[in-house]
Amino acid sequence: MNHKTVFNVVGKIILVEALLLSLPAVVSLIYREDCFWAFLTVIALSVLIGSLLTWIPKAKDAVIYAKEGFVIVSLAWISMSLIGALPFFLTGEIPNYIDAFFETVSGFTTTGASILTDVESMSRGLLFWRSETHWVGGMGVLVFVMALIPNLSERSIHVLRAEVPGPTVGKLVPRIKDTAKILYSIYIVLTALEIVLLLCGGMPLFDSVVHAFGTAGTGGFGIKADSIAGYSPYLQWVVTIFMLLFGVNFNLYYLILIRRFRSVFKSEELWVYIGIVVTAVVLVGINIWPLYQNVAEVLRLSAFQVSSILTTTGFSTANFNLWPPFSKAILVVLMMIGACAGSTAGGLKVARVVLMFKQLRNELQRLLHPRAIKTVSFEGKRADTLTLNGVNIYFSVYMILLVLVMLLLSLDSGMSFEADVTAAIACFNNIGPGLAEVGPLGSYAGYSDLSTFVLSLAMLLGRLEIFPLLLFLSPSTWSKK
Amino acid sequence: MNHKTVFNVVGKIILVEALLLSLPAVVSLIYREDCFWAFLTVIALSVLIGSLLTWIPKAKDAVIYAKEGFVIVSLAWISMSLIGALPFFLTGEIPNYIDAFFETVSGFTTTGASILTDVESMSRGLLFWRSETHWVGGMGVLVFVMALIPNLSERSIHVLRAEVPGPTVGKLVPRIKDTAKILYSIYIVLTALEIVLLLCGGMPLFDSVVHAFGTAGTGGFGIKADSIAGYSPYLQWVVTIFMLLFGVNFNLYYLILIRRFRSVFKSEELWVYIGIVVTAVVLVGINIWPLYQNVAEVLRLSAFQVSSILTTTGFSTANFNLWPPFSKAILVVLMMIGACAGSTAGGLKVARVVLMFKQLRNELQRLLHPRAIKTVSFEGKRADTLTLNGVNIYFSVYMILLVLVMLLLSLDSGMSFEADVTAAIACFNNIGPGLAEVGPLGSYAGYSDLSTFVLSLAMLLGRLEIFPLLLFLSPSTWSKK
Repeated sequence: MNHKTVFNVVGKIILVEALLLSLPAVVSLIYREDCFWAFLTVIALSVLIGSLLTWIPKAKDAVIYAKEGFVIVSLAWISMSLIGALPFFLTGEIPNYIDAFFETVSGFTTTGASILTDVESMSRGLLFWRSETHWVGGMGVLVFVMALIPNLSERSIHVLRAEVPGPTVGKLVPRIKDTAKILYSIYIVLTALEIVLLLCGGMPLFDSVVHAFGTAGTGGFGIKADSIAGYSPYLQWVVTIFMLLFGVNFNLYYLILIRRFRSVFKSEELWVYIGIVVTAVVLVGINIWPLYQNVAEVLRLSAFQVSSILTTTGFSTANFNLWPPFSKAILVVLMMIGACAGSTAGGLKVARVVLMFKQLRNELQRLLHPRAIKTVSFEGKRADTLTLNGVNIYFSVYMILLVLVMLLLSLDSGMSFEADVTAAIACFNNIGPGLAEVGPLGSYAGYSDLSTFVLSLAMLLGRLEIFPLLLFLSPSTWSKK
Repeated sequence: MNHKTVFNVVGKIILVEALLLSLPAVVSLIYREDCFWAFLTVIALSVLIGSLLTWIPKAKDAVIYAKEGFVIVSLAWISMSLIGALPFFLTGEIPNYIDAFFETVSGFTTTGASILTDVESMSRGLLFWRSETHWVGGMGVLVFVMALIPNLSERSIHVLRAEVPGPTVGKLVPRIKDTAKILYSIYIVLTALEIVLLLCGGMPLFDSVVHAFGTAGTGGFGIKADSIAGYSPYLQWVVTIFMLLFGVNFNLYYLILIRRFRSVFKSEELWVYIGIVVTAVVLVGINIWPLYQNVAEVLRLSAFQVSSILTTTGFSTANFNLWPPFSKAILVVLMMIGACAGSTAGGLKVARVVLMFKQLRNELQRLLHPRAIKTVSFEGKRADTLTLNGVNIYFSVYMILLVLVMLLLSLDSGMSFEADVTAAIACFNNIGPGLAEVGPLGSYAGYSDLSTFVLSLAMLLGRLEIFPLLLFLSPSTWSKK
């Protein structure tokens, strides 16, 4: 383990966080809120810790191997969350530090699950910070750092692999730093576009910015008790469309930029993603029809909720907790699928689900014709055994951990079975709201400190796609051998 | 597709069913019940259909390929259930044929889920038949037929593979027919031993036989409203121990018979199985301690329920629906694990779970040391890629189908989320009782005909380990190519 390099990079990330915290500090200054002083304190602290850590000289060969990559990513996310929780705690707006940690992890992991029971009473500065964490966490903070740091070794692909979701991560362009820059540029442009379109619909500037942050990171923190339900149908449609756009693999936007439209059009994952959206919107629409009986409203509500859950954003315009069981069940299934690989969304990802189904079809063929040799192809290429095994093992460990989280939550006897199951799914897949007590109008406030901590860990495991954090916690990473 | 051979074997199985039906006919004659005439009618019908089908001459080369194997197994189980449901329907004791079909499928698949709301009012003949289906279904009806039929081709290993649960099925002895005979002999001896021990504890003969049938097949149909709770602690312990014994891989009993004790002692799956039982009994025991506060009672209740659920039997001595959420969650996890491969139990099987965890450990090692080549070994042998892939794909399709069943159940708006989820798990894993409305004191009577049919299919899919039935329903099995 190259400790010096690890400390150095983590230090840089903490310095970046100080920079990120200055934005909400300015917001609280504009609104003349007391939380300004809390932000200032935390910024000072971050600069201090960050400087101390970066003071440690880097090792001469600053190569980041797989092991260091996992440790850096895990430490970065944990320390950012620990520091990011301080403003909530210091202002007393979230008096319990574990709750503040949960809220911050929920922000950075773009989950959007909240322990707040009265979000509208929060100060503007903290609301801004809460949503900003979504935006930063969406694309990945290390990708951001990589776009900034000069002289980055090309071996840092390990870090990118560990942070960007999906079964396969490639470099768009030969230099990893340029890849990071391209990804962030697309991300910034799309976010800006959403802000403009929201402003055009009459949404106030503050609201537009925080909601665009929440959409871009597929996070879902809102600033109203009823999430997006109070805004006009036009605004709801804008959010719907941008949720779907941020659920698409960002590589496709790059392909559009370099005018390789044919490749975009041939993307298997994109078509399956669109297929899932359309099917779910229609099924839910038919199922909730008796409740609303107005085509435009049914379509809007169905499309919004389906997009929000599938892309793991978690905004809501309807209390789907009151929808018929079939619609609720569809939403739970969408929670587990998630959107496309290489997007800001959580969940298993469409690519993995497609590969699982293709392997299943192959297995059935193999059982019928034991001697025929079949291969699985995806996106026009043959999927190699390593990728397929990776998908299978990911799914196994995903289910094992999901069950473990449910088991730990059940130690908390206050909540219903439905809440425990859906809270585990919603946090692990970085969605936000679940059903029953943790439904769209509910909150996670009912859980004990232990459960809140377990759910925080689940969110981090989900966001980092399990393995980095699992390796970070595994003894063999730290053994000398 | 070799249609003639398929019809011939299915015909033989229907003739065997006529033979099996004569036992409850005798029972109803002894108790002078009217259901005797229903049994007689169904026996006559079975002999007629079976004779017609076996009349069709076998094809000259009576080789059973993989494809025929799957079709035979599927058709055999479906037709046995369709015929076996008739006595319930004809007597009017279960007036809805779909319900009768559900009850029979539940019997043959050793699930033990019931739509009966008042089991004690049923006639003795039907109760006997219900439990006998468990016994027949436990070891597999085709294995039974294979032990009887003379001149069986050695290629019939496909049938054995399709019917006996577990990731790997080997032949104990070179001749497959002898393997089938050995398996059934062990099964009969163990069942007889349980009957004797139950009789020694003062249980009436009828009760002893039906409960031994239910234990041996890991089925769980009882004849009392409170299942086994009304019997003495001694009897409850006998059932507990035999449930665990029938959850062990039968190959181990064969190894004991041929005095290869060392091999038994070295069985990884056996030790993990014991470990799971002990851990679960302790955890549940601590959790339910405040409810009973008597060491002997807590241990007995915990051990019984854990053994019953893990081995997917489904008898109960306590209404675990009222236990704390943590105990319920543990039981749900045990439902999915199931007992050992090569036993009469349902579920994923311990062997698969062990292989999943070993692969996960390997993957973590691989991520840390990308160049190291690691293999997974199990039971002292290296697990080949085909076996591991099989396990992974099995788990994926298992979860996909489980979710699909839940989705279809949710169309039925009458039942709770908890009931829908646990009903799907309990039927798919061939356990029996779930939680909430389908808990140990509840029944499946609340579900609509559609849901009952879906659950019947789920039980068959679970018992036959998915692929045979899936291939039977897949168009490519039937295409000429």
